[in-house]
Amino acid sequence: MANEIDKQNWNVPEPTLRRLPWYLAFVKLLKLRGESHVSSTQIAKEISVDSSKVAKDLSFVNIAGKTRVGYDINTLIDVLDEFLGFTTSHKAFLFGVGSLGAALLRDSGLTQYGLEIVAGFDVRPELANTFINGIPVYHISELGTKQKLHQATIGVLTVPVNRAQDVTNVAIANEIKAIWNFTPFRIQVPPTVVVQNTSMYAHLAVMFNRLNAVEKIEDKI
Amino acid sequence: MANEIDKQNWNVPEPTLRRLPWYLAFVKLLKLRGESHVSSTQIAKEISVDSSKVAKDLSFVNIAGKTRVGYDINTLIDVLDEFLGFTTSHKAFLFGVGSLGAALLRDSGLTQYGLEIVAGFDVRPELANTFINGIPVYHISELGTKQKLHQATIGVLTVPVNRAQDVTNVAIANEIKAIWNFTPFRIQVPPTVVVQNTSMYAHLAVMFNRLNAVEKIEDKI
Repeated sequence: MANEIDKQNWNVPEPTLRRLPWYLAFVKLLKLRGESHVSSTQIAKEISVDSSKVAKDLSFVNIAGKTRVGYDINTLIDVLDEFLGFTTSHKAFLFGVGSLGAALLRDSGLTQYGLEIVAGFDVRPELANTFINGIPVYHISELGTKQKLHQATIGVLTVPVNRAQDVTNVAIANEIKAIWNFTPFRIQVPPTVVVQNTSMYAHLAVMFNRLNAVEKIEDKI
Repeated sequence: MANEIDKQNWNVPEPTLRRLPWYLAFVKLLKLRGESHVSSTQIAKEISVDSSKVAKDLSFVNIAGKTRVGYDINTLIDVLDEFLGFTTSHKAFLFGVGSLGAALLRDSGLTQYGLEIVAGFDVRPELANTFINGIPVYHISELGTKQKLHQATIGVLTVPVNRAQDVTNVAIANEIKAIWNFTPFRIQVPPTVVVQNTSMYAHLAVMFNRLNAVEKIEDKI
């Protein structure tokens, strides 16, 4: 059973993995509204995704819908939460306790989605042995010692651009297996290390550009 | 001149807009290292993007490189910063001062990239008229009044999923032109309103899945 799920997990396309949390959010909302069942057509309509795509996405997940009735909402929530890894606690270290880093340490919401940041690291001596939101911050030189204790697998990277590659190397040398990269720098890693880029500033650039284009159109009307 | 840039801006593909901040970050790093010029080949190699793609991306930006010497780094930084909208201050309201919302209010880094959050809004009365990082938080009922004062164009959406659509509607009714959506809910908006989705939890799901796959492969070796 566990093996079957793992096998499925291997080949899930990234776009599917990015859409499944949307379905999960919508289905949780239906549950709040007191609904008991949902069809893939209903999800498709609400999310503005093609209905066959929703059915295909959900085919990666180990759940069967019933004709006419659809999926049982409670089961779908449980199965999606587990499939997406949100119910398993993944230990993480955060590197770079600057403005964004400190903000992420304060975002307790991440814990609900399976990311448990157990410590922050920084080069600034004045930050060593302080706490943010109950999470200890250490000097980067203590990484080896703390990793023996925690065996974290994920590194959240919020250092300045000019430190991004150095700190990535140090993290990987200390058995970090995946880097959640919030810097706009393209880090290079060995093929067995996972990188997930979340470039908030790149998203800002897209938004500014589109906003600018819309305003120009409106000026012409 | 300004018109020419605006015209170019209209048709910039989203992948280009997402890659340009990577180039900018890398070129800023070169500047720190004391370099004066950079070629598109050099950028391509460092960022692991095809060299012709880099040249094509940079063709949207109003800058000319010199054969053999490449682009002047100072000029490239200025032009990219301006092209991406990072040098213009865009006024924003943040909706939903929960864990993530409060964290974003504390991230002063956003200001450096052109996003100036001038106020936060929440439904909880106990948050009204407090300050986070010097930014005032108001009850949502004050939105109309505060919008007259600030004329913000961007709404940062960090409310719970079950409020995402409602609050979007209220924001748009109050002349917000673009929504930066951090919720995993697919909000629906009129065609003239810009939406940029930043689904941090979807990124987590992708990372967990890839990490799981890698660990399974390593178990087999």
